[in-house]
Amino acid sequence: MEHDQSPGEPPNHPPAQATLHEIRTAETSAAHLLPKLHSMKEFNPHLTLLDVGCGSGTISVSFAKLLPDGYITGIDVNPKILPRAQAVAETAGIKNIEFKQGSIFQLPFADETFDITYCHQVLIHIGSPWDALREMLRVTKRSGVIAAREGDYETECIWPELPELVKFHKLMAGLMRSGGGAPAAGRQLLSWALRAGVERRQVTLSYSTSSYNTPGGRKICSQGLCEQLRGGGLREKALKFGLGTENEFEEMAQAWEEWAEKEDAMLAMLQGEILIQK
Amino acid sequence: MEHDQSPGEPPNHPPAQATLHEIRTAETSAAHLLPKLHSMKEFNPHLTLLDVGCGSGTISVSFAKLLPDGYITGIDVNPKILPRAQAVAETAGIKNIEFKQGSIFQLPFADETFDITYCHQVLIHIGSPWDALREMLRVTKRSGVIAAREGDYETECIWPELPELVKFHKLMAGLMRSGGGAPAAGRQLLSWALRAGVERRQVTLSYSTSSYNTPGGRKICSQGLCEQLRGGGLREKALKFGLGTENEFEEMAQAWEEWAEKEDAMLAMLQGEILIQK
Repeated sequence: MEHDQSPGEPPNHPPAQATLHEIRTAETSAAHLLPKLHSMKEFNPHLTLLDVGCGSGTISVSFAKLLPDGYITGIDVNPKILPRAQAVAETAGIKNIEFKQGSIFQLPFADETFDITYCHQVLIHIGSPWDALREMLRVTKRSGVIAAREGDYETECIWPELPELVKFHKLMAGLMRSGGGAPAAGRQLLSWALRAGVERRQVTLSYSTSSYNTPGGRKICSQGLCEQLRGGGLREKALKFGLGTENEFEEMAQAWEEWAEKEDAMLAMLQGEILIQK
Repeated sequence: MEHDQSPGEPPNHPPAQATLHEIRTAETSAAHLLPKLHSMKEFNPHLTLLDVGCGSGTISVSFAKLLPDGYITGIDVNPKILPRAQAVAETAGIKNIEFKQGSIFQLPFADETFDITYCHQVLIHIGSPWDALREMLRVTKRSGVIAAREGDYETECIWPELPELVKFHKLMAGLMRSGGGAPAAGRQLLSWALRAGVERRQVTLSYSTSSYNTPGGRKICSQGLCEQLRGGGLREKALKFGLGTENEFEEMAQAWEEWAEKEDAMLAMLQGEILIQK
């Protein structure tokens, strides 16, 4: 389960929630793009890449490492997350990168600016994702590629199926819907691309999974989700939309702690992936 | 979506349904095992491998190709499928293989017979899968490995979500349950292995996906499922258990035909995978 910075969510992530976001890299979250990226890099080491909805920038920074002679731009609708992204880049000693504020629906770039335009766990949170894809297509060069990877939250499976975790799953789906998003994004990615004006032959469609099941992975996942339930923007938003009570959130957090201690515990979700050849 | 030969299902597969089964190989359905298999083969080219629930034998035959100096045994509870498996091996010119009838709960082999014991889409169909895994452990040599890959049918996603396809999904889940199986197998694989007496540290857990979305893939999938709905063992079993009417099955088949013609159509499912180091 991966949750990007969604528009309007404040960036006051407690540390464990930040860890849950920031373990993500191009290798974990853009594997379907990397063979194409490396192939393009052979012909042009100076590739430009736009990471839309970059959040705290760990994926952007890992792209910058893969393209040392290229240039990465990370953009996020939430300006408050950008100092964190900048800090992540500085800590990694990365210079070929910049972060900007902007909306996926109105990217502040001229037509055909980037060789590669990428997003992950962004389209799931927004209404009319086909308009966002159309905008990503606009800023991508001819012969460039657009890559998106979005979870299909309806496929999330959790074991053991503790009742409070089933409630948590419904809470998160409700939060996505309350913001205009579509929890079953993964299965719809192709249809969104076609609605954005892409032809089927331009699209390579694939599926992968994200999961937590090792002792270390369970701990990172549980601590991150417990912090979201006990404080921070997700909790505030859920209370505001009447999606649960403080007592219920505490019960869910305790269930995640119980889950993390179980040897047979797992959490997995199917991810939809598209690669569009412009 | 992959459906193995389940116990009691007659092997009178019409041609398109056979195609849907027989496109499967070790590469498509045992990718989590292959690095270990190749590593073991470096030390011992004469590996013995048991494929439990081999059905029409296409996966077994591809294992035989990967282990030309090894020996493959395919076993299935249904004796009527074995001539088809034998024909698949003969057509491929494969000699280092044999097929036998037998139950996963009482494998007709001495303790510690095989280097590798494998099953795919078998545990999902049976009650007490932990007993089956215990039996697979028994026939595996010390330092050997047991590999299983099972779909999590509850994660199956279909787009577009035509109402008759949603009904079809429920029909298939009902069929699995009517035979004592657990449609949400993928998420439970680890818990089943622990219940079979395995320690957590012995298990490598991974997840992958199976999907159909290209024109060719959609055609194979649709034709195979239409044939299952219009004739053969699945239809007979569903009628016997009162899980639907002939009219409903015809409507579902027509919906699969409609689905196959749609450019944005997809079907995907999460697969659970375990590799147990004995």
